[in-house]
Amino acid sequence: MSDDGARPSESTDGGARPGLSRRGLFRVAGVGAAGMLAAGVTGGAVGRITANDGPADVAVSPLPDDSPRAMVRFAGEHQAGIITPAQDRLHFVAFDVITDSREDLAALLRTWTAAAARLTSGQPTGPDDTGEAQDLPPAGLTMTIGFGTTLFTADDGTDRFGLAGHRPRSLVELPPFPGDRLDPAISGGDLCVQACANDPQVAVHAVRNLVRLGAGVVRVRWTQLGFGRTSSTSSAQATPRNLLGFKDGTANLKAENGQALDHFVWVGEDDVDWLRGGSYLVTRRIRMLIEDWDVLPVPQQEAVMGRTKTAGAPLGQVAEFDPTDFAAVRDGQPAIPRDSHVFLAHPTNAGTAILRRGYSFVDGTGPDGRLDAGLFFIAYQRDPQTGFVQVQRNLAGDALNGFVEHGSSAVFACPPGVVDEDDWWGRALFESSP
Amino acid sequence: MSDDGARPSESTDGGARPGLSRRGLFRVAGVGAAGMLAAGVTGGAVGRITANDGPADVAVSPLPDDSPRAMVRFAGEHQAGIITPAQDRLHFVAFDVITDSREDLAALLRTWTAAAARLTSGQPTGPDDTGEAQDLPPAGLTMTIGFGTTLFTADDGTDRFGLAGHRPRSLVELPPFPGDRLDPAISGGDLCVQACANDPQVAVHAVRNLVRLGAGVVRVRWTQLGFGRTSSTSSAQATPRNLLGFKDGTANLKAENGQALDHFVWVGEDDVDWLRGGSYLVTRRIRMLIEDWDVLPVPQQEAVMGRTKTAGAPLGQVAEFDPTDFAAVRDGQPAIPRDSHVFLAHPTNAGTAILRRGYSFVDGTGPDGRLDAGLFFIAYQRDPQTGFVQVQRNLAGDALNGFVEHGSSAVFACPPGVVDEDDWWGRALFESSP
Repeated sequence: MSDDGARPSESTDGGARPGLSRRGLFRVAGVGAAGMLAAGVTGGAVGRITANDGPADVAVSPLPDDSPRAMVRFAGEHQAGIITPAQDRLHFVAFDVITDSREDLAALLRTWTAAAARLTSGQPTGPDDTGEAQDLPPAGLTMTIGFGTTLFTADDGTDRFGLAGHRPRSLVELPPFPGDRLDPAISGGDLCVQACANDPQVAVHAVRNLVRLGAGVVRVRWTQLGFGRTSSTSSAQATPRNLLGFKDGTANLKAENGQALDHFVWVGEDDVDWLRGGSYLVTRRIRMLIEDWDVLPVPQQEAVMGRTKTAGAPLGQVAEFDPTDFAAVRDGQPAIPRDSHVFLAHPTNAGTAILRRGYSFVDGTGPDGRLDAGLFFIAYQRDPQTGFVQVQRNLAGDALNGFVEHGSSAVFACPPGVVDEDDWWGRALFESSP
Repeated sequence: MSDDGARPSESTDGGARPGLSRRGLFRVAGVGAAGMLAAGVTGGAVGRITANDGPADVAVSPLPDDSPRAMVRFAGEHQAGIITPAQDRLHFVAFDVITDSREDLAALLRTWTAAAARLTSGQPTGPDDTGEAQDLPPAGLTMTIGFGTTLFTADDGTDRFGLAGHRPRSLVELPPFPGDRLDPAISGGDLCVQACANDPQVAVHAVRNLVRLGAGVVRVRWTQLGFGRTSSTSSAQATPRNLLGFKDGTANLKAENGQALDHFVWVGEDDVDWLRGGSYLVTRRIRMLIEDWDVLPVPQQEAVMGRTKTAGAPLGQVAEFDPTDFAAVRDGQPAIPRDSHVFLAHPTNAGTAILRRGYSFVDGTGPDGRLDAGLFFIAYQRDPQTGFVQVQRNLAGDALNGFVEHGSSAVFACPPGVVDEDDWWGRALFESSP
């Protein structure tokens, strides 16, 4: 958090401002006051979202990140929810836009921005709020928006909202990969919102109220709940285990890797202006064939993963953060098999890096009595082609492929953060368009 | 917790005991040592599940109940997970038994008992454990078993396992209720296990390992995940909100209501011997018609519920725990409408009481774009006929019925707790049979 987080308010008069509806304005005013009180800011500033030139993703409160009372700053150079230390619960939603009106879409994005500012500070969205998060603290809630390919250009080539000319060159559907079993009904989407929190009820409440506010403009296309973040995104977090029982994300990009983030995560000057400081989001719903995995003896599981199960050490090493030594030899063979997941996915061999932020899911039991469970993979990167696509291509011979099935895929462009009270999700995109 | 929780061990020799497999014995030995260490017991007792004549459902550790490190005692007069202060997460599973062998079924129940003792103390089930809870604390895990009607008598009348003669008289399918839209595929089951914990990964891990250990003997029939307990079961817990945005469970039976528990929850001498100290479990998956509810103005929502939305006060009162005054009048009408949920469900008018222990669920989005979300209702009672059935019949005219749909139903008899190291889930049932 930058030291200037509590700048004096530019305006407290509550008067009308261009581009912000009365309703939106009321909501922004509300969050300014309550949010700052919650953050312990004692200045008289009321009626604004505080600007923030520093990293957006730092808890405003001095509480530990996983405290229910933790509050993550909504405004900032980058959207929160990307390098924010990963919270424990996810509610991800993809929407289809059902209006043809550019104005209605832009108005909704303004309304949503104000709602997200309130929600992330622990406030209800307004008098019509659905209420189930009343009395609950912010629980580290972040809400992160992304724009899908079809928002810019419909499948039939239509420029739906006059945005096609500003479609980023890297925002294209992912290529097919061997073994894909994608269901179009739970893939893609015009818009997405990633809600993460340490309390599932807080995340569910946030998404539900965006749905409520979006009636007539958007329709839910698909949703995914997740738990037990499967990748650390901060060096301060212990590495969690995925549903294969292995530590996951040991070598992930972390919030503390400033230069690497600029290189691999944040969109730079080589992309469209409105996306600078944003990122590309790739999601994949990866079902794990749990029952097949569970009968595989642990030494074979370890050979598939390339790490030990208990410690999470690279094979041939002892501790989780021991160096991944691909030259190490055991019994005349590479200690880390050449077809292991770690060998193929490691930045050294993939030649790139992505910021993973996935969650485990268990969505009940299929008709065959097998668990419908696995990893809802989320990755942020500066360019999907040199990020996820490159990593995934490198995994073509991954021994893990026999135990996973990709059933859903999506790619979104996530704009930079909202920087002041007049800003809103997508403003730069909409105002840079003809 | 009773003061005699650390009795000297009867045996530490690891020798074979009747009715306990070598494998089960190993596991019980493991939990004895590790579990006691975790609980800070410094005596030399190894190789046993500690007996407990007092309430089973008291955290062994001095930590608050919702701490991740909290450990709930597995052994005791009653099963844990009934009056245990409700944890935040649920993984419920119903099984079909797929073997005809009474011996294999009994052996599995012994194996499961040993596994549950280990799991609830934060230990892996053994060397083949799936691993995803390694490094995670017990998180207040409880595992509660129940036996369904079809375990005793198959739908075609077959006495499958020689247990029909010991089927409790009250263990019968629930009668149909108006408005039921039950799906048989997610109703019923021969066995069930309710796993509750403050970490969803811990609950999922527990169920998954029972599934793994049950291969060839049982098959998963249906599962349900839940979050955000919707009823307090202890006076020390704040009343949570359900997905309708209202506080739920204000007038619930609580762990502190000793006499009422004996009267309404625990099976007494008027039922079969093996079930004494146990309870009957009723589950109902109740989908809430969220989108319809969300457009209902709050005053009308309050009239449906009979309570205020923000405070949770009975209508006509101010605070949540103000007396529910059914004689109060407002504008010439009863302050609490006669068709409100509170009026009809309240013990005063239902003439009975049940211990509710339900959880919210959000299982994604239906093909119509509507949320598949609601309440997974769980209730414990001494007799379903004078418990849930009586309450539900009284709700026939409930104004809330327009906003809910019951899609799944099940009833199970839950045996009393496991009291010593030779005991196992269902032992009294199996040993009392011909």
